[in-house]
Amino acid sequence: MSNGINVAVVGATGAVGEAMISVLVDRAFPVAELRPMGSSRSAGQTINFHGQEIEVVEANLNAFDGIDLALFSAGSSVSLEFGRALAAKGVTVIDNSRAFRMDDDVPLVVPEVNPEHIGSDDYLIANPNCSTIQLVVALAALKKVGAIKRVVTSTYQSASGAGRDAMDELRDQTVDLLNFRSPNVEHFSRRLAFDVLPQIDSFADDGFTLEEHKMINETRKILGQDTLPVCATCVRVPVFVGHSISVNAELESDFDLKDVSASLGDFDGIVLHEVQDEFPTAADASGFDEVHVGRLRRDPSVENGVVMWVVADNLRKGAATNAVQIAEVIYENQRWS
Amino acid sequence: MSNGINVAVVGATGAVGEAMISVLVDRAFPVAELRPMGSSRSAGQTINFHGQEIEVVEANLNAFDGIDLALFSAGSSVSLEFGRALAAKGVTVIDNSRAFRMDDDVPLVVPEVNPEHIGSDDYLIANPNCSTIQLVVALAALKKVGAIKRVVTSTYQSASGAGRDAMDELRDQTVDLLNFRSPNVEHFSRRLAFDVLPQIDSFADDGFTLEEHKMINETRKILGQDTLPVCATCVRVPVFVGHSISVNAELESDFDLKDVSASLGDFDGIVLHEVQDEFPTAADASGFDEVHVGRLRRDPSVENGVVMWVVADNLRKGAATNAVQIAEVIYENQRWS
Repeated sequence: MSNGINVAVVGATGAVGEAMISVLVDRAFPVAELRPMGSSRSAGQTINFHGQEIEVVEANLNAFDGIDLALFSAGSSVSLEFGRALAAKGVTVIDNSRAFRMDDDVPLVVPEVNPEHIGSDDYLIANPNCSTIQLVVALAALKKVGAIKRVVTSTYQSASGAGRDAMDELRDQTVDLLNFRSPNVEHFSRRLAFDVLPQIDSFADDGFTLEEHKMINETRKILGQDTLPVCATCVRVPVFVGHSISVNAELESDFDLKDVSASLGDFDGIVLHEVQDEFPTAADASGFDEVHVGRLRRDPSVENGVVMWVVADNLRKGAATNAVQIAEVIYENQRWS
Repeated sequence: MSNGINVAVVGATGAVGEAMISVLVDRAFPVAELRPMGSSRSAGQTINFHGQEIEVVEANLNAFDGIDLALFSAGSSVSLEFGRALAAKGVTVIDNSRAFRMDDDVPLVVPEVNPEHIGSDDYLIANPNCSTIQLVVALAALKKVGAIKRVVTSTYQSASGAGRDAMDELRDQTVDLLNFRSPNVEHFSRRLAFDVLPQIDSFADDGFTLEEHKMINETRKILGQDTLPVCATCVRVPVFVGHSISVNAELESDFDLKDVSASLGDFDGIVLHEVQDEFPTAADASGFDEVHVGRLRRDPSVENGVVMWVVADNLRKGAATNAVQIAEVIYENQRWS
C-alpha cells in the first residue's frame, strides 16, 4: 500500500471530525483517499482537505468500500451501527464515542500510555473520553516515579466537549447577557455563560454523573489498575476549547518532587511548565497536541501526595489527535504495508 | 444607645463596600448614622442609603469620631493604618482584609461556625477570605457528623473577588473577544474571558498561591484545628459573582450519608440541594446570603470520604453578609445597649 491509506472520517462536519481532518494534515498521515461521512443532513456539504473540496457522503455500510481506516466521531448510535461490522470486514475502526470503551475485547488506548494494548488482530479500538486522555498522560508520567494509590480530580471542561452547537450556545448566551436579553438554554442543563455547571452528561444512582464514571472507569482500564481509587467531579466552564483538570494524586511510597518534575518533563506528549506563574491555561493549549502540566507541588495534606494542573485541547489531544496517534501506532506496526 | 449604632463603611464605593451597605439595609441592622468612607479619590461621591444620598468622606482617624462600628473593606494597607488604633479607642472594627486574620489576638469569625471566638473585649475582629467562609460553613455541618480528617478543595472563583475593576475587565475582555479585538489584561495575570486561571493572589515558595494559603490556614483557625490537613487549588473562572468549590473531605470514622445530608440541611445558613440535578450554581446563589450545598455523595476512592459542591455569593456571604452577621453577634451580646 505504497500509495497510502484510504481514510473515512465519520462525523466529518462536527467539531471533532473537523479537528480529525486538520490533524491528519498537520501530522502528515499518509492518506491516499479521504472520504468524509456524515448523516443524511450533512451529506452534500463539502470539507477542505489539502486545498481540495470533498463532498460529505452519507454513512452506510457500502459507503466504506475500499476504506482501510475509519475514524468515528458521530455519537454512540452511529458507532454501534457500523463499528463491529466494519471491523469484522477488516476495516480498522478508531471510535471516539463511548460505545465500546468499556468492552473487554476492545482496547482503550492513549498512545503515550498503553500502545501495547493494541493487538495485531484488534480492528476496533476505542478512543477515551477527552478529559480522561489528558489525565492518564499525566498519571502515566507520575507512575514512572512510583505506584499510584489514589487520584482525586475536579475538572474545568470547555463547551466544545459537547460539540459545535454547544459552543454556539455559549457564544449566543454571552451575547444575550451582554445585551440584557434572556439567554436560550438548550445544550446544557442550565445557562453556561458567566456560570459554571457541575454536571456533564446525566446523573447515575450513586450521585456521580456518567462523565465522572467515564473518568473513573476509563482511567482504571487504560492504566491497567482495575481497582485504582479515583474520584472525579466534572464541571463545565464557559470556555470554548480546552479542558483543565485540578489533580490531587497519592503515590504508594515517598518520592522526590524533582523526580516527578523530571518524569513529567521527559514524558512523550507532555509540556511541563515548571515556573509556577507560567501555568498553562485552556486558551494557551488550544490548537496544540500536547498535554500541558503546571502548578506542580507537593500536597501537604497527605503522605506522598502531589498536586498538579493538567490542560489540553479537548478537540485535539482529547479526541482527534489521540485517534490519529492510534492510527499511527497501527501504521508503524505495519498493518497496511 | 436606643437610637441605634453609628456605622462607618470604609471602602464604601468598592464591590464589597456597596454590598455591605445593601446588607445593612436588607438585614435591618439598627444603623443610626451611616458614614461611608473611602480614599481621597472616592471622597465626594455619594452612595444611596434608605433613599438618602450620603457623601463619601475621606478616611482618616478624625473622620471616625462618634463611630461605634467600622466595617473595613479597602485593602490591607488601609486596615493596617486604622484598625488597631480605632479598636484601642473602643470602636468595634470588623475587617475584611487579610491584615489581621492570622494574628493570635484577633478572632477570625464565621458566625454560624465560631461566634464564641468573639470575646467581650475583642474590638478588632477579622472577616475571613471569601472562599474560606463558604467552605467552613459546609465543614462545620460535616463536623457535627464526625471529626474531619482531611480536606481537598478546587475552587471556581468569580471575578468580583478581585473587585469591581476586575469585573469590568472580564466584561470588556468578553466584548473585545466577541468583536475580534485583542483584549486588555490588567487585573488578572492573564486574560480571564473564556479561560480559567489557576492563580489567585501571588505565589509562595512552596508552589501554593497566597489565596490557597489563606484557605488552608484560615480554615484551620476558624475550625480550631491547627494541624488539620487541607489542600487547596484556587482557580479564577469567567463568572461575575459567586464562588463554587469542589470539596473532597474525609472523616475520622464511618458515617451514614443520610446523617451528613440531615446535618447540612439543618445547619443555620446552609441551603441543601438534595436532588442531584438541582445542583446550585454561582448565578443562582448570587444576591443571596446562604451557602448552597449540592452534589453531595460518598467518595468511593477513600474510607469515610464525602464529596460536595459548595456555592455562595462571595460579595455577600463571602464578605459583606458575614461582616454584618459578626456585628449582629456583638449587638446581641449587648455591647451597644
